[in-house]
Amino acid sequence: MIRIVKIGGNIVDNPELLKEFARDFAAMPGMKILVHGGGVMASQIQKDMGLTPVMIEGRRVTDEAALKVVTMVYAGWCSKKITALLQAEGCNAIGLSGTDGNAIKARKRPPVHIESLGKEMDYGYVGDVTGECVNARFIYSLLERGIVPVFNAINHDGVGNLLNTNADTIASSVATAMANYRYRSPREVCCRCEECTHCSDDGRLTHETELIYCFEKDGVLYDKDDDNSVISEISRSRFEELKKEGIVADGMIPKLANAFKAIDSGVARVVIKHARNLLNDKGTVLI
Amino acid sequence: MIRIVKIGGNIVDNPELLKEFARDFAAMPGMKILVHGGGVMASQIQKDMGLTPVMIEGRRVTDEAALKVVTMVYAGWCSKKITALLQAEGCNAIGLSGTDGNAIKARKRPPVHIESLGKEMDYGYVGDVTGECVNARFIYSLLERGIVPVFNAINHDGVGNLLNTNADTIASSVATAMANYRYRSPREVCCRCEECTHCSDDGRLTHETELIYCFEKDGVLYDKDDDNSVISEISRSRFEELKKEGIVADGMIPKLANAFKAIDSGVARVVIKHARNLLNDKGTVLI
Repeated sequence: MIRIVKIGGNIVDNPELLKEFARDFAAMPGMKILVHGGGVMASQIQKDMGLTPVMIEGRRVTDEAALKVVTMVYAGWCSKKITALLQAEGCNAIGLSGTDGNAIKARKRPPVHIESLGKEMDYGYVGDVTGECVNARFIYSLLERGIVPVFNAINHDGVGNLLNTNADTIASSVATAMANYRYRSPREVCCRCEECTHCSDDGRLTHETELIYCFEKDGVLYDKDDDNSVISEISRSRFEELKKEGIVADGMIPKLANAFKAIDSGVARVVIKHARNLLNDKGTVLI
Repeated sequence: MIRIVKIGGNIVDNPELLKEFARDFAAMPGMKILVHGGGVMASQIQKDMGLTPVMIEGRRVTDEAALKVVTMVYAGWCSKKITALLQAEGCNAIGLSGTDGNAIKARKRPPVHIESLGKEMDYGYVGDVTGECVNARFIYSLLERGIVPVFNAINHDGVGNLLNTNADTIASSVATAMANYRYRSPREVCCRCEECTHCSDDGRLTHETELIYCFEKDGVLYDKDDDNSVISEISRSRFEELKKEGIVADGMIPKLANAFKAIDSGVARVVIKHARNLLNDKGTVLI
């Protein structure tokens, strides 16, 4: 089993929550990968430096000055602080941008038509990533030596430019890539252990892969005002019903749609839960 | 042969020089490690953010706000920009702080008496590193898979704190650690190749290790005003003579003393040269 855990800015920005999370993540058994967002710190540093953060439809317009700031914040402070906290908990973490070991290569996003502006918009140094962009072989070589990759959302295009990408997409792309990575067991036959659930004819195996999105809520809620109304499991057909009933709405629709896309691409299950429940089975499981 | 190359701020701060250097470093054959300083960018960002850089005897006093800035600049922007440029040149680089893979653990510097101030001074989040702090096994595991470690001067103390350290010392500590690292050859006997020059009784080997300090001058000069007066080779006894003659003076004395310390600790030779001469044999060789 390989688990990919995504945490957002609400944890990264809060030293107390981050320390608690690091303790829990370090205690999680098995092969694991962390993907972190950057929180509001990047915008704050932009303002401190006299720059004006520009967000269009929730995404940062990334000119050269903004790229410098997000790289400093995500790949610098956030990555190294998280990694140092994990090391202190005995978890042998390694903070990575996509450029490190050529782990993830992104494609610069071409200008896109923005409905609300009625014109084309170039987001600048912003990139898109899919499972094919991920160097699963390199990531697996770390995992099999007990090293825990910690990804930030800064990637590269392979010709010397850094690109700002979306951490949720990094998490699903890494999960998809690892779910499809066929490794050769040291014994070169199926080891019949719990970890390897899929054996292929040529003696190479895949790991079952789980994608965990940590979230401010305990999971997907029946009633958005009732934190106790967590839906424990959602299948694709149930997802369609929940959309029709208006229970899953707004920003939750693309989140869940992306999760089901990861499942279609080989990820065994996606879990949406509160970070404080990382080590228990509370949350919403998408299968 | 393992080569450790140190570049300073004069290259890191200059996009044109950095690009040229990346091309040359990528073309350098064999196992190699890069260590980079951070240049004046950290002080500039401190000023942009309304902070006042405090330097005492050439070292930065690093309170929490300053630590955040140096981590953002050295481990974020500088590390990822250099790594992306190397990847573009076909060099599979990985940007590392000491916390990544627990590569280097530093010790927080205790308050020191500063002669010029006549009092004790706490430098804050500043650490010291020696060869014993370096995880040579991890670094070697990258090198043997063709991955090129690129170190910045941000390290950790193992209990969750980041520490600002000196890049020259990182370079000599990594060189010392790699010079003394005994690896097991795949054939478990001496391969008699050019690379392994020392064979031990138990079948484990060490690599000859060279430390290259890139510098603004072509090497150590007989006459500091004549760039053509490079001293091609300095032994320890010649170093003592050059000091007596006043040819080696001021800041060059501790630089060379540290270089000879690395040689005493197992490094085969230290070379002081201009970055533009990385691929030729111009420069001063200390043996």
